[in-house]
Parts: sequence; structure tokens; C-alpha cells
Amino acid sequence: MSGAENYVISGPDLLNLTTEIFVKAGLGREDAGIAAGSLVEANLRGTDSHGVIRVENYIKRLKHGGAAANVKCRLVSATPATIVLDAENGLGAVASRQVCGLVRDKALKNNLAFGVVRNSNHFGAASMWALLLAGDDLISFVGSNVHRLMPAPGGKGAAIGNNPFALAVPAGRYEPMCLDMACSVVAQGNVLKYRHDRRQMPEGWFVDSEGEPTTDPFEALMVLPFGGHKGFGIAVIVEMLSALLAGGAFADNIGSQYDDLVNPNRLSHFFGAMRIDAFRDLGEFKSDVDEFIDKLKAVPKKAGVAEIFYPGEIEAARKKANLKSGIKLPRSIVEELSEIAAELKVEKTMIAPLTARPV
Amino acid sequence: MSGAENYVISGPDLLNLTTEIFVKAGLGREDAGIAAGSLVEANLRGTDSHGVIRVENYIKRLKHGGAAANVKCRLVSATPATIVLDAENGLGAVASRQVCGLVRDKALKNNLAFGVVRNSNHFGAASMWALLLAGDDLISFVGSNVHRLMPAPGGKGAAIGNNPFALAVPAGRYEPMCLDMACSVVAQGNVLKYRHDRRQMPEGWFVDSEGEPTTDPFEALMVLPFGGHKGFGIAVIVEMLSALLAGGAFADNIGSQYDDLVNPNRLSHFFGAMRIDAFRDLGEFKSDVDEFIDKLKAVPKKAGVAEIFYPGEIEAARKKANLKSGIKLPRSIVEELSEIAAELKVEKTMIAPLTARPV
Repeated sequence: MSGAENYVISGPDLLNLTTEIFVKAGLGREDAGIAAGSLVEANLRGTDSHGVIRVENYIKRLKHGGAAANVKCRLVSATPATIVLDAENGLGAVASRQVCGLVRDKALKNNLAFGVVRNSNHFGAASMWALLLAGDDLISFVGSNVHRLMPAPGGKGAAIGNNPFALAVPAGRYEPMCLDMACSVVAQGNVLKYRHDRRQMPEGWFVDSEGEPTTDPFEALMVLPFGGHKGFGIAVIVEMLSALLAGGAFADNIGSQYDDLVNPNRLSHFFGAMRIDAFRDLGEFKSDVDEFIDKLKAVPKKAGVAEIFYPGEIEAARKKANLKSGIKLPRSIVEELSEIAAELKVEKTMIAPLTARPV
Repeated sequence: MSGAENYVISGPDLLNLTTEIFVKAGLGREDAGIAAGSLVEANLRGTDSHGVIRVENYIKRLKHGGAAANVKCRLVSATPATIVLDAENGLGAVASRQVCGLVRDKALKNNLAFGVVRNSNHFGAASMWALLLAGDDLISFVGSNVHRLMPAPGGKGAAIGNNPFALAVPAGRYEPMCLDMACSVVAQGNVLKYRHDRRQMPEGWFVDSEGEPTTDPFEALMVLPFGGHKGFGIAVIVEMLSALLAGGAFADNIGSQYDDLVNPNRLSHFFGAMRIDAFRDLGEFKSDVDEFIDKLKAVPKKAGVAEIFYPGEIEAARKKANLKSGIKLPRSIVEELSEIAAELKVEKTMIAPLTARPV
């Protein structure tokens, strides 16, 4: 490995390597490809926090029993428009890929469909599933609960996860609209960066052990919901649509994905979809979405701002660029992946592309 | 009228008076009762900004052509799970009441249903329709677009409405959960109060004509989305689910409800519902919602905080209290309603309760 701080690897090479890592960790090749694909897709879209940085945690969970490698989703119940699956503690991406296909089929036949999954694990970037489910003709809405990590308004203990969700809407000339967010102001992990740099954090991000606002990263205990009680309320609703509707675990029955590698995470997800042409002509809808975006971009901009973006536009542009130029990974991730791959006895020719292009 | 600053009127008396006002303004008695009921319900729930304070605007719009009194919703298209209505410029409450009934019926038969309405007017408090649609057995999701009044991130012109939405989830021992919000940090109308009081506004509420943050109410031009780009993105999605799916007006084709009383407002709404027992036993679901709320309330509280509330709990408690004690209205609203009623030749015995109980 050279002294470079960053390396560039092509999307296909990173997908091959990550797939092989999951195969060596015990997943069937198809499931391994799905799990790897969901992580590499996040890197392609520039949302690196949900990319291959997660491989280490997934592998540790598979090794220590926190997640199961060779399981199949169990059908709990279904109607023409609905489905309930139990992921049997498999990887969230594997269950999500399956339920997206089932919900999409149901929505195409029934105009609307809604599926839920329980006993699952981290499902990666919500946008991955929203875009897959929506395709070219549906509007989709997906989400997941996670362990409690944010306070309620008035509370000083962890009350609710920052429950991520995403919605996708196809456009015509433009790439699909895709809104993807967690219900916290920022990611919980930010506090580590500020501790490392010994810098004060911006106001409004974190609270201390008494539930009072703090900018001191060493006092910071919990990240706040975005928009105060509004973000808190949305997180609660995501919990209702996922865990409560799926009959899954909630509140103190969900452990931390990172702090507890031994016990199942017991996350729940939801996947809803609507067929646009049940409401109006699909072409006219898409043409209106294009016009909406055109008008958004035509609004006067602040000094120094070149363009106004619609939800998901920046990520779609990054994917196009990264498919061409490759994915940039920091040295720390490259080393981590190399070690994991070597330990699992992945062939050296598959690991080599990680360090072939230092930048 | 005495010198009191506030008056108390019972819910039924206020409903009778408001219904009669709408009848005199040309609505059929049933439609008048629906429109009045939606406003009085907001007062009962303590969300006075969506209560009878809106009567003046509704009446002005009916008088000047901005809204139509005697129209019926036109069916545009329907499938077993979906419906598209054209409100023909009638009051939003009248169309919303109708589509809630239709979507509820469809959801009961089909497990899922989604309806949209175009060419409508202000539909009042979103929670009204979310709770009505959900009843005791469905999860509901409703929303509406409004005229552009917030900037996009990077923009200095109005790009999107603060598009309100609500979701309702039935519980067991507890009153139903109901999350109801607009996508702005606060209501646009706050700026008027601060101008009147010549006070600085809190940071993060408004921007000036250059799109830069300001606390000066005389420089303040637009209210910001809650949570920055997150609230902006949610507002865009509400626009997709309402106007774009309904084939309704959007962007510059929607005028202000208050500034343009002559032209149709052309708002669109959406109403989605899911049957809970399509996924799991309804009683078990409700029991889990109760347990979720119990656990939320059991989380350690900040010093001085007596209780943690779930979304919609405070409004439900206020309704119980106001049904008993009556609705408190400020003198300004009492005078406004009295004048409107007198001008429309409403019987004096119906107006009298407004000022019978000064406090």
C-alpha cells in the first residue's frame, strides 16, 4: 500500500470484492451480491456513511450471531395488497430486496401495495429500496426503525430511533426524485469526529445526560430529532409503520447494531408503493414532475448559489460521475476491507484493485 | 359586548352559529355543517389557527368567487383502491369529508386505498381528516399543497408551500396518535405578531428578500422549512402526492388563499388509508401501541418536565376539556364573527352565545 490517503476503485471491482467477502462469510452468492450491491450503491451515490464502511459491522454480526447468513424470509401473512415477512435475522438488504419485488408485483396488479418485515437487520440506505421499488412507474415509501438513540421533547433518556425513511417519485427528463433522511439533525456518529478533533459542535445537534443542549462533544450524549417535536413525531410514525405494523420489536427490545454484536437486532422495515397510472396518465404525470422541477430551478437564487436541486438529484449525479471515475475510498476503509478480505481468505487478485489506484 | 378580552362559547353553540353563517353564504345545510364542523373541531382541539378565525376568509372567498358555494365533487376516475375527485372549487372541507368516506370504504374492502382531490380550497386542519379517515381500525395519511411561500435551500424566492400533512394511528387505552404539521418552522402568520409588538423574532424562522436569515420582522419575507433541506424535501413530496398525482395546479398556478379572493385557489389534497388487520390482529396492534406509549412516558424526563406526550395527545386532551368548559375566543374573533353573522342576517339568538360568557 502506498502512502496515499485515498484510493479509487471501480464500482464493479468493489462489488466483486464485497460480494466475495460476504460469500466467504457464509452467504449464498445471490444473497451476498444483494448485500454487497446495497452497500456499493450507497458509495456510488456518494452516501459513504451507508457504503462499504458497514462491511466490518455486517461481518462481525454474522460471525458473532447478531445476524444470520443462511436463512430465508418466512411468509407470515399476505393479501393481494399486503404482505408480512419475518427476516429470520438475515441481513436487512436480503429481506428488503425480496420484499421490494413482492410489493412491486402486488402494486402493479392491485394499484397499491404495502409490505412489512420484522426480525431483520440494518437495511442500508433507504433510497436504495425506494428507487428499486418505484422503478419507472410507481411512487414508493419505505422506512425502518432502529434502536432508541434520540430524546423525546421534554425527555433526557433515549426514546426513539432516528428511523430513516425514503420516498421515490419517477420523473421524465430528470432522474427520479428521491427523498432520503433519518429523523435526527445529523448522524449520531458526528460526535466521534468532533471528539477526535477536540472541536465544539454546532448548536442544536446534541444534548447532554440531563437532556440539555450542549456543543461539547465530550458532554454530548444524544443527537436531537430534526425540527424538534416535528422530527420526533415523524420518527414515531416510522416506528408505527414498521415495527408496530409488522408485529416486530420496539423500544428497549432493540439493541444497538454496533454495541451488541451477539443478539439479533430485530429491526422492522416497511415498503409501500402506488401505481401512478391508477390516478392519471403516466406520461402526463412525468411531464408535470419535469415542469415542477423546471420551475423549482427557475426560482431566484441566493448570491453565490449556482443551482437549486430537487431531492435526490445530487446523489443521482454523483452516481453517474462515480460510475465513470470510480469510487474514492479513504485509506482507513481500504485497510479495513483488505484485512477483512485477507482474514476470510478472499483471493488476492480480488483484493488488489483496492490499492491499485492511489490518489 | 362587555369590556372582556375573552369569551367562552360551547362547542355546539359555536357549531350552530358557524353552520348558519355558511348557510346564509349560500352553502347547503349539510355542506355548511361539514365546513363549520371542521373549523370548530380545530378550536376544540386547541389549534385555533385553523378554527373559526378562518370563517372571514372562507366567506370572503365565497363572496368574491375564490370559492364556490353550491357545487358537487366530480368523479374523475376510480379503481377499487384509488379515486380522483375534482372539487369544482368548492370548500376544501366539503370535498375532504366526501373523499374520506369513499377512501375509508375502499380501504375496508381492499385493505389499502388512496384518494386525491384537485381544484379544491383550504381543507383546514389536516388532523381532522386523518382522524376521521383512520377511525378505530385504519392508519391514515393525508396532506395538501398550498401556494408557494418557503424558499428552497439556496433560493431567495418562494419555491414551495409549507404543505401540511397528518397521520393517524389508533391506540387501545390511549386516544389515537395523530401527527399533524406544516413543513415550515412556524406559521407564516407569526411575522405579523412580531411586527405588531415590534419585537425581534427567534433565529432560524425567517429569511429576508435576499434569502438571508433575519430576526427583524420588518425585513422578514419568507418562513423557512423546518429542519432545513429535510422539511423542504418533505414539502416537495407532499406536493407530488397531492397536486402532481391529482393532475392539479402547482407552483405559480396557485394563488394565495388570503391575497387573491377572486380566483380559485386550485389546491390539491391526498388521503391514504391502510387496514391494520390486513397485517396483524387489530387488538394486538393496539395493545402494542399502548405499550409503546407507556414506554415513551417511562423514559427519564428533564428537570421540571411533568410528562412526555405522544403526537396528538395534547390536542385530544384539550378537546375533552373544551367540550366540558367551552371554547375560549379572543374579543377580536368574537367581534369579527358577530359582524359577519349580522351582515348575513343570521338570527340574533344564534349570535348571542358569542358574548354571553365573558371571562
